[in-house]
Amino acid sequence: MSTKPIQVGAVMYPGFEMLDMFGPLEMFSILAPDTVSITMLAESPDAVPTAMGSALASGPKVAVDAVFNDAPDVDILLVPGGFGTLAQLDNPAMLEFLRQAADTAQQVCSVCTGSLLLAKAGLLDGRRATTNKLFFGLGDMASTAVQWVTHARWVEDDRFFTSSGVSAGMDMTLALIAKRFGDAAAESVAMNAEYTWHRDADSDPFAQYLNEGLAAMQTQ
Amino acid sequence: MSTKPIQVGAVMYPGFEMLDMFGPLEMFSILAPDTVSITMLAESPDAVPTAMGSALASGPKVAVDAVFNDAPDVDILLVPGGFGTLAQLDNPAMLEFLRQAADTAQQVCSVCTGSLLLAKAGLLDGRRATTNKLFFGLGDMASTAVQWVTHARWVEDDRFFTSSGVSAGMDMTLALIAKRFGDAAAESVAMNAEYTWHRDADSDPFAQYLNEGLAAMQTQ
Repeated sequence: MSTKPIQVGAVMYPGFEMLDMFGPLEMFSILAPDTVSITMLAESPDAVPTAMGSALASGPKVAVDAVFNDAPDVDILLVPGGFGTLAQLDNPAMLEFLRQAADTAQQVCSVCTGSLLLAKAGLLDGRRATTNKLFFGLGDMASTAVQWVTHARWVEDDRFFTSSGVSAGMDMTLALIAKRFGDAAAESVAMNAEYTWHRDADSDPFAQYLNEGLAAMQTQ
Repeated sequence: MSTKPIQVGAVMYPGFEMLDMFGPLEMFSILAPDTVSITMLAESPDAVPTAMGSALASGPKVAVDAVFNDAPDVDILLVPGGFGTLAQLDNPAMLEFLRQAADTAQQVCSVCTGSLLLAKAGLLDGRRATTNKLFFGLGDMASTAVQWVTHARWVEDDRFFTSSGVSAGMDMTLALIAKRFGDAAAESVAMNAEYTWHRDADSDPFAQYLNEGLAAMQTQ
């Protein structure tokens, strides 16, 4: 067993959703000291603004530890969602970085619409995956070769973990921690974060509400 | 009714806990557009590192929008916890800023050990409040005039909202949103964040575990 910390690389872009990012990172952060190290990655070195709902980039800004062109290899790659995803679907630098980083990562995780970026990069072709239920239409635009699961808190397919919207990222991360560091480690993390862990990947209490919302939007 | 956004001021210091901060801010961020505006506050202008568990300041860094000496008045003041709290209990600049900002704020909220800072600043004297269950001993050190509630997800006393550890901040914030913007707004936020809202302030599923952990630490 190596004593070197596991490297978590977290991908930022203008208008990423703050809880998509900091829910999972919180869970990693309260593992035993020196278990993981977090590197915040972005295309350019300026601090990256988060989304305020659908307002693209007016939230708190997060500092960049390494730019894509000079990023270290990471063991776990985390890709959050947010309204900023839409612009990144057409950003070759983002898609190329995701392909390179995923190539060497042991696990690749996305939250919410982050999976659309993985899909557009071709990383989910032939795989089962999920995303925010409001955005399945975009999923098919990103890649028609993905088996989108319409009702799931998160989906694990080999080394790819994709979660439903926002808070679902925390449940997915706890499942990944359980897999990688053991059940007891994940339970301890959830307890110390005072977080009620939803352990069933297939139970999705929000799918119906969000699908109804989507239907309502489409008939407007 | 004013159309000016509600100003949320979020207080940072080295080693604040990331989910204490970004859980509540996420909930505010997905209210209807232009409902709130967030200002990240700190003593000095350098980006502020978050905690990695008990490692004080090795997590992602967040940019500062305004320093204490030049901060705008805010409507809602948010004070997160984290291991960095301990050093701030002896920082006069922090305690004085909290007193000033709380004086003009309509609501003052803390998550986890953030309430120790409010207590040390004298803001909770004569009030009911809670904190992370592992740190009640420090609560009495911060102020003996606080009625610490040992079993609560969060405690509301007049305009002061104090929550238990980490994830509890999200439940407290949804309660504050319900109070300020109505139940429907809070329910919509929770659904869109795919967050299972714990609505009962008095139900604390983590108190027993954490109190037992505390007892075990004290007998070591």
